[in-house]
Amino acid sequence: MAGNSFGTIFKLTTFGESHGEAIGGIIDGCPAGLLLDMNAINAEMNRRKPGQSSIVTQRKEEDNVKFLSGIFEGMTTGTPIGFIIENTNQKPADYSHIKNIYRPSHADFTYDKKYGIRDYRGGGRSSARETACRVVAGAIAKQLIADIKITAYVSSVGPLKLQKHYSELDFSQIEENPVRCADKEMALKMEAFIKEIRNEGDTIGGVITGVIQNVPVGLGEPVFEKLHAQLGKAMLSINAVKGFEFGSGFAGTSLKGSEHNDGFKTDGSTTTNNSGGVQGGISNGDDIYFNIAFKPVATIMKSQKTIDNEGNKIEMQGKGRHDPCVVPRAVPIVEAMAALVMADFWLQNKLSKL
Amino acid sequence: MAGNSFGTIFKLTTFGESHGEAIGGIIDGCPAGLLLDMNAINAEMNRRKPGQSSIVTQRKEEDNVKFLSGIFEGMTTGTPIGFIIENTNQKPADYSHIKNIYRPSHADFTYDKKYGIRDYRGGGRSSARETACRVVAGAIAKQLIADIKITAYVSSVGPLKLQKHYSELDFSQIEENPVRCADKEMALKMEAFIKEIRNEGDTIGGVITGVIQNVPVGLGEPVFEKLHAQLGKAMLSINAVKGFEFGSGFAGTSLKGSEHNDGFKTDGSTTTNNSGGVQGGISNGDDIYFNIAFKPVATIMKSQKTIDNEGNKIEMQGKGRHDPCVVPRAVPIVEAMAALVMADFWLQNKLSKL
Amino acid sequence: MAGNSFGTIFKLTTFGESHGEAIGGIIDGCPAGLLLDMNAINAEMNRRKPGQSSIVTQRKEEDNVKFLSGIFEGMTTGTPIGFIIENTNQKPADYSHIKNIYRPSHADFTYDKKYGIRDYRGGGRSSARETACRVVAGAIAKQLIADIKITAYVSSVGPLKLQKHYSELDFSQIEENPVRCADKEMALKMEAFIKEIRNEGDTIGGVITGVIQNVPVGLGEPVFEKLHAQLGKAMLSINAVKGFEFGSGFAGTSLKGSEHNDGFKTDGSTTTNNSGGVQGGISNGDDIYFNIAFKPVATIMKSQKTIDNEGNKIEMQGKGRHDPCVVPRAVPIVEAMAALVMADFWLQNKLSKL
Amino acid sequence: MAGNSFGTIFKLTTFGESHGEAIGGIIDGCPAGLLLDMNAINAEMNRRKPGQSSIVTQRKEEDNVKFLSGIFEGMTTGTPIGFIIENTNQKPADYSHIKNIYRPSHADFTYDKKYGIRDYRGGGRSSARETACRVVAGAIAKQLIADIKITAYVSSVGPLKLQKHYSELDFSQIEENPVRCADKEMALKMEAFIKEIRNEGDTIGGVITGVIQNVPVGLGEPVFEKLHAQLGKAMLSINAVKGFEFGSGFAGTSLKGSEHNDGFKTDGSTTTNNSGGVQGGISNGDDIYFNIAFKPVATIMKSQKTIDNEGNKIEMQGKGRHDPCVVPRAVPIVEAMAALVMADFWLQNKLSKL
Repeated sequence: MAGNSFGTIFKLTTFGESHGEAIGGIIDGCPAGLLLDMNAINAEMNRRKPGQSSIVTQRKEEDNVKFLSGIFEGMTTGTPIGFIIENTNQKPADYSHIKNIYRPSHADFTYDKKYGIRDYRGGGRSSARETACRVVAGAIAKQLIADIKITAYVSSVGPLKLQKHYSELDFSQIEENPVRCADKEMALKMEAFIKEIRNEGDTIGGVITGVIQNVPVGLGEPVFEKLHAQLGKAMLSINAVKGFEFGSGFAGTSLKGSEHNDGFKTDGSTTTNNSGGVQGGISNGDDIYFNIAFKPVATIMKSQKTIDNEGNKIEMQGKGRHDPCVVPRAVPIVEAMAALVMADFWLQNKLSKL
Repeated sequence: MAGNSFGTIFKLTTFGESHGEAIGGIIDGCPAGLLLDMNAINAEMNRRKPGQSSIVTQRKEEDNVKFLSGIFEGMTTGTPIGFIIENTNQKPADYSHIKNIYRPSHADFTYDKKYGIRDYRGGGRSSARETACRVVAGAIAKQLIADIKITAYVSSVGPLKLQKHYSELDFSQIEENPVRCADKEMALKMEAFIKEIRNEGDTIGGVITGVIQNVPVGLGEPVFEKLHAQLGKAMLSINAVKGFEFGSGFAGTSLKGSEHNDGFKTDGSTTTNNSGGVQGGISNGDDIYFNIAFKPVATIMKSQKTIDNEGNKIEMQGKGRHDPCVVPRAVPIVEAMAALVMADFWLQNKLSKL
Repeated sequence: MAGNSFGTIFKLTTFGESHGEAIGGIIDGCPAGLLLDMNAINAEMNRRKPGQSSIVTQRKEEDNVKFLSGIFEGMTTGTPIGFIIENTNQKPADYSHIKNIYRPSHADFTYDKKYGIRDYRGGGRSSARETACRVVAGAIAKQLIADIKITAYVSSVGPLKLQKHYSELDFSQIEENPVRCADKEMALKMEAFIKEIRNEGDTIGGVITGVIQNVPVGLGEPVFEKLHAQLGKAMLSINAVKGFEFGSGFAGTSLKGSEHNDGFKTDGSTTTNNSGGVQGGISNGDDIYFNIAFKPVATIMKSQKTIDNEGNKIEMQGKGRHDPCVVPRAVPIVEAMAALVMADFWLQNKLSKL
Repeated sequence: MAGNSFGTIFKLTTFGESHGEAIGGIIDGCPAGLLLDMNAINAEMNRRKPGQSSIVTQRKEEDNVKFLSGIFEGMTTGTPIGFIIENTNQKPADYSHIKNIYRPSHADFTYDKKYGIRDYRGGGRSSARETACRVVAGAIAKQLIADIKITAYVSSVGPLKLQKHYSELDFSQIEENPVRCADKEMALKMEAFIKEIRNEGDTIGGVITGVIQNVPVGLGEPVFEKLHAQLGKAMLSINAVKGFEFGSGFAGTSLKGSEHNDGFKTDGSTTTNNSGGVQGGISNGDDIYFNIAFKPVATIMKSQKTIDNEGNKIEMQGKGRHDPCVVPRAVPIVEAMAALVMADFWLQNKLSKL
């Protein structure tokens, strides 16, 4: 109810604040009999964790996930999978200076007003630290739907936009550079740009493109649980996301029907895929592709004018160890959320017909 | 489960195919004691119905809603509100020519594959006729949260884009022109353009902008039920929608944090509102604004090459009475979905704190 | 949310008051491809409807169900099944005398207090008329799980208790007598007793026994959705029900473990089945059997002292056409609810393991 | 979905096997601003834990709950409350002898068949150890609805039945004896009887009576979420429960309407309360009272014939440290589940009317 669950059959519920003892979650509805590859789960966690490269936050957190239930001798048992990730790097004192301050474009003000109380240490529940739990669950979801290939990469950083279509890119490049851009040359430019921004004490936004391939026909539940609607919600629920488009997206609004309609090949696949792999909310077997807009990180290393919780004007200095650009570390989170959506619809679709 | 419900507390479940006897729905969770203005509900229905102007489909459907329960002497009773809308203009014969044909960029192929059976009459469940039920429920939701002002308007049609910010527009213009553009001059251009497209036998996409004003602080349930995430899902669940962005949206990805951050005024409102009225998934009291991308209608009056359900190549001719551009009629649907989201979060928020 | 839905995958949502224009519902989650036997549905409706025999209410209602969606050429399409049942016998004037009166042991007082408004015509939403919708959905559920045999019968009326175990009874007798008792001689005694009670202007309680046979192993979802917990809820949600027990039930509390434990046969079935076909919340393949307690109908034809909505003492006379004993007509309702539970768990169980 | 959540607004999701590293849960939907009394929570845990007295299992487990989130400076923050309870006394080796054996009247067989895999250590997920998490959440729920008084006590053990009505009892006696019977003399008899049974190496069933007092009018959500239906489900979901009745219960089926109907006093309360505090699924302000049947514990210290997972006949010896009678330790679990139900309906009811 209160918003900390995601999914219908394959369902993740999470808890935890950035500076509590631990964060964690429960995955309910994972079928029994899935032999888990723990290395693969840890690899995903490492992709998201802070401190991996010079262009992300230099906080050191190990992000070790500890599974407490639902797995027996390496295999899922059909019972709920409980897990925790201890917050080993919690330094609440880092945040005492913002106790009564509402940081611009953070959730301090809204949490305080909504709940009448706020765990001010590091953003509390509104911190992106929460997304570590999504990556755990997403890594399991990926293994459940191992035939479906989910890939995300950075396609723009600030004004630097990768103009190539995803089909022109070499996905093996993504993990070869700290930006997680699928194009080697552009990655270098983006990296340089992020460093420049960081040196200014500033931050910058960006776009992540997601591609889901080898999708079975039939996933998605009309009319309110359309595949792309739930996928969009999944992405919009990630911190800092401001927009989602799939297939032809916003650009497609300028097209005529005769230009936009996807002709069928005789095998049921289409020639153009402006639809982005979804028709009427149901996957048609073509690639699903989408863009996600991320705003610049709100925490900057510059002085800003703001207010405290009594409405007094305050000058605050940026402090702490933050990401100058969120998109490189958000790539595995995007993939995780996509995996949760696809695993859930994959299970639901088993009940569509007799 | 199967996707025909929307909302958590204020919950709409719908049924119905475009060419069955009736469509309808059940609204559960509307509090007792709301005196309904039936004229206002009918007015919303009339905004959505076909045949209102020369630039929308010329089908004639009355779209009269008949309430069957949950209302006593004009007031909601707290029990479920059941309603039906009879399909008075059903001409299934119109569709016999497409019985075995998969129309390009329609849901014929995906429904057939997912369910193994398809009500081919007019798109069946995938028809936008289903949205009439959303308008009914949205009209009630609007009355429940009467203080919150929800407005939508057409901001682009094909290449014609209204460049003005919503605050520069006169919303009273919206219902004064058949395009539902909030700018008189642009409306004339758009109308002319749609007629041109229609005369070509073609269709065109567009963008609708939504604005929600006078919003209480505190609506939205983090972390997975963030206000903008559920709002995005609501919009993406509308037929033909390909994208959603709110606040600074995709354009905001090019900004630096120091440019994007919204400074606070001493009353807690912000100076710039790049956030679009939502911080951390919770409304902050500023205006919520968003854009929705609609693709061009798939049904065109031109001949198209496609396939039948046995994979044979087919040449099909456009027939029937369809919209050359979906956005004018989608305006009330966008408002209805926004109202459902806001009413639901408004109720949920009553339980946020003691 | 507000309580008018039942089920997780196979989900029924209902609406309607006893004296509105119609009652109805939506079944979401029924898989596509089920060829429906409409005669079987109507037969169930006829078992529940008023006026079937001399020992039930003499109201005449046809209870014709009209399906509006989700069925195409006789087959379920996977889309929601909407249906209505018109209230042909509504005589609201019958109830004007109780407009401000709180009838003893009815829901008048509680609805009025909870909602601040009450549709006083015939009990409104609290009327057992609502159960007609359950019978519709249950009849479809029965067809979905056609191999599972669901039987209910009257096992006591007031002090008259059928002492035989269900395995000693001839279920073909149930529909041969108006009481729906599975024992011919006891049925005659019960019928005579009910007539006597009716002649006194009084009513009497009773017990229905349910038996579910040929159940696959594995249905039920621990820990909170145990098969018997959901079955119990289903039964307790029927009007006038005061208790539920399964297997050894309350009598089993007097037994020792060595007496109560069910020995296994080598095929996994048990010798004694004190467990009532469920272990740990999951069906074990043995028969599921249970008893349901129904209180006497609250509406009696005798004068009663009560109060009005201002707390004034009132003497009210019994009027109208009511059942002297609810259990004969409740038999198909019990079966319907059991079918909803079993169909839902049957679908859910398809996702238990890879 | 998979059954490990309970509640609609105030929602508990649990995980954990009896012999894993820890069990735990997440409480979502608890309003912010509740100052928690941790001693009261621990006191409830101590009432449930093993080894409290000579008539319960002699296993020693500390059952210390560790809260990981959702509480800041002692107060709920509105974010999810995550907690774990470490299994300090796990001796998986104790269970190696039953690895392939299906114990009579346990869930070994059904879990194995449903999931194709089973954590055989101590019953795994089907162990009553899971109920410790319910007690944690119930203890918080009790504090949320502090004005509502929830009491449970043992009213029968085997053939020993307390004949007194709850209103004749002194509830302060309950915690004064190890049986948790509300009558001093009967408690002594029950205690002696349980010891006798234990010495036989056997177990015995019993009944717990619950009483909920000082209930606001209006709790419960008709028609499928009737207060007593959800309460019944809550109780039936507890391990070993075989039956639930409220108000007049099964005995009420023998009464006539004229005997059973509850006359109103002028303040709206009733003279007799056969209804058990609920009318039409909604609380009427009178006491809610109910009985819950518990079967004898399946684990006995006697030799039993059974089968293994290949269908071979096996003779097994009772081993381990188990309860001869479950009802004394189930008392706090019953109260916890009642508190979860009441807290959830109390929150839901805030949205019933404008």
